[in-house]
Amino acid sequence: MYPRTITNLIECFKKFPGIGEKTAERLALSCLNMEDEALELFANSLKDSKTKIKKCTRCGNLSEEELCPICQDKHRETSVICVVEESKNIVLFEKIGTFNGVYHVLGGLISPLEGINPEDINIDKLIKRIKEENIKEIILAVKPTVEGETTALYIRKLLENTDVIITKIAHGIPMGADIDYIDPLTLEIALTDRTKIS
Amino acid sequence: MYPRTITNLIECFKKFPGIGEKTAERLALSCLNMEDEALELFANSLKDSKTKIKKCTRCGNLSEEELCPICQDKHRETSVICVVEESKNIVLFEKIGTFNGVYHVLGGLISPLEGINPEDINIDKLIKRIKEENIKEIILAVKPTVEGETTALYIRKLLENTDVIITKIAHGIPMGADIDYIDPLTLEIALTDRTKIS
Repeated sequence: MYPRTITNLIECFKKFPGIGEKTAERLALSCLNMEDEALELFANSLKDSKTKIKKCTRCGNLSEEELCPICQDKHRETSVICVVEESKNIVLFEKIGTFNGVYHVLGGLISPLEGINPEDINIDKLIKRIKEENIKEIILAVKPTVEGETTALYIRKLLENTDVIITKIAHGIPMGADIDYIDPLTLEIALTDRTKIS
Repeated sequence: MYPRTITNLIECFKKFPGIGEKTAERLALSCLNMEDEALELFANSLKDSKTKIKKCTRCGNLSEEELCPICQDKHRETSVICVVEESKNIVLFEKIGTFNGVYHVLGGLISPLEGINPEDINIDKLIKRIKEENIKEIILAVKPTVEGETTALYIRKLLENTDVIITKIAHGIPMGADIDYIDPLTLEIALTDRTKIS
């Protein structure tokens, strides 16, 4: 019973993950109360997201230019690469502010179940970078799932005969968490990977 | 750390009610995986929502034309008006499918606390319709809050000296609800408004 434009908007919002019928309706209707400029910017940004956003040719991060801002930054320690699954992981690492290396975005994890093979993700370019860019260390920062472990294992295998140091970020009990509520697997890893206190 | 277009998109999504930082980020990034046509339709619908969507000059419902589809429909019983707060309430009534009258959208409820006075909502036009359109009955279908009751009372007062029948939709226990969980006020109304079973 809504006019066509509203029905279209509802359908568009429903295409997003986690947005159902009711939420889509609410979002579509709230567009009607928005400022002209806000809607204009929104519409243009949506179109730009297809045309302007590319992948950094070096690391695969989202970028509007040939190289992403991090790869362009001359103050970065380019011999340390932090390997992440998605661009949005970079945002988190950058928020800490202490990591000064560069990144490499895989754009996915190896998953035979979902039909994602090593050649489907950005591994080739990582190996090429390691060979060409004088890399000292790669830090594997993928999530600790079957897919993440498989991907980490695969990359480690490929780099077996090189001098590059391969590390992975620590898994264990999150800061501030109550040990009572930690799952046994995490606790086991936390115990195995215990560090010496000085 | 995201490119400008993505940051813009995140900001745009954050303007919607109930959408926070994390959700906005997730939605903005999922735009990158959408089909070109879907994004194009989305962007155009957003712009259209400002230009094409008007209010029906008769009932105040959202419409792309001078009169909304319901007011244009010649098979409607135009002597019965169901008075609702918002356009989206009409969608619910239309889903039942048994109401064949027309509607009137107030576009808000009287609320002295929020500074919404009778002249701020679409009451004048309702009174004008009742005088001009040979209306037999108006059904007040506003929500049972202080604002809803105030608005209903105000409309009833305005129509005191007319022959129009004023009714309001029944309040009581929802179908299928467990009486144990019903608030005392609803139970009181349900008791007062009890109907005879034949």
